[in-house]
Amino acid sequence: MRYHRIPDETIRRLPIYLRGLLFLLEEGQQNVSSRKLADFLGVNSWQIRKDFSYFGGFGTPGVGYKIERVAKQISKILKLDVTQKVALVGVGNLGSAVLAYPGFRIYGFDIAALFDIDPKKIGRKIKNVTIEDAAKLRKLKKRNISLAIIAVPRDTAQPTADALVQAGVRGILNFSPCYITVPNKVKVITIDIAMDLARLPYYMPAS
Amino acid sequence: MRYHRIPDETIRRLPIYLRGLLFLLEEGQQNVSSRKLADFLGVNSWQIRKDFSYFGGFGTPGVGYKIERVAKQISKILKLDVTQKVALVGVGNLGSAVLAYPGFRIYGFDIAALFDIDPKKIGRKIKNVTIEDAAKLRKLKKRNISLAIIAVPRDTAQPTADALVQAGVRGILNFSPCYITVPNKVKVITIDIAMDLARLPYYMPAS
Repeated sequence: MRYHRIPDETIRRLPIYLRGLLFLLEEGQQNVSSRKLADFLGVNSWQIRKDFSYFGGFGTPGVGYKIERVAKQISKILKLDVTQKVALVGVGNLGSAVLAYPGFRIYGFDIAALFDIDPKKIGRKIKNVTIEDAAKLRKLKKRNISLAIIAVPRDTAQPTADALVQAGVRGILNFSPCYITVPNKVKVITIDIAMDLARLPYYMPAS
Repeated sequence: MRYHRIPDETIRRLPIYLRGLLFLLEEGQQNVSSRKLADFLGVNSWQIRKDFSYFGGFGTPGVGYKIERVAKQISKILKLDVTQKVALVGVGNLGSAVLAYPGFRIYGFDIAALFDIDPKKIGRKIKNVTIEDAAKLRKLKKRNISLAIIAVPRDTAQPTADALVQAGVRGILNFSPCYITVPNKVKVITIDIAMDLARLPYYMPAS
């Protein structure tokens, strides 16, 4: 089965649904209605039904969605049904927090390479992965890693991205507080950890 | 001027636009077309025009949007035209990364209180703010702080949220890898730093 023309906004929400479904599955649940799933995730149930409709994932009236089946479908669409190897560049506070984050494993990611420029860090092992010299990022090319996370200071983010692209990386999650430029064949998502805080005051009652 | 019924999805995108506009303003630009802004931010230009239409923010043909004016409007809608005080609970790797993140200041946030349970950290100062004992979160009540960031381990996230709500906090940004439950009057946004990575493989070319 092929999936065509799924809107970006739906793709953005699929990992939210997947995380929720996997959580419910772990709790021993087998079925869930769109309304219960919506309440649990704090989203609209019509949105869930619309998003699921893109891949024919309709629930059964009175029974709801089969959690395991839908989770598998979403994983497949997102290409998370295989283990995706990831390189992490920058093992400072943010990089360490990323490494410690349990959520990466849930989605099937394997942080398989670590890089930093700090000589004190190079050679150290974290979770069985040795920190390598970021000056040698190009070594990645032979290791079949096409995803990378950038968690370096602002001024080294662009050269880091350039080296990653040269090393064959095709997807970059950028945590550095700046925009980076890459060729069209590479997808970049820039995270701003302040951005979600920025929409909170809107929802707060006037005091 | 009042703004009514702005969709959540538009509110979610406003901080993205605001960050981009402030960046262009800093670079000395005064006007920008929806297409140029869209290219810069990697979004659709029709989306920008539609989102801006909710608050009457139409550009002028041939001139585009007046950057400063639109940025001010967005700030006002998001209630970011005043300094918003924020408490940060948990000064570990993630909390430290949050503190070091330059993006919070751009949006006008002031991280005015720090809390941790580690006796070695309590009493230490970071950027002129003293780390306080997280067991005394209720002290926040008299300090006019209605926003908080939770960056504690999974098992203490819910009690932390409960204490924050009791202390009068009405908006919570939750970085802990779990769902937390709060009364209706409180808005929670749970961040999953793995979630954005989870939609990257979808966009990568088949290898």
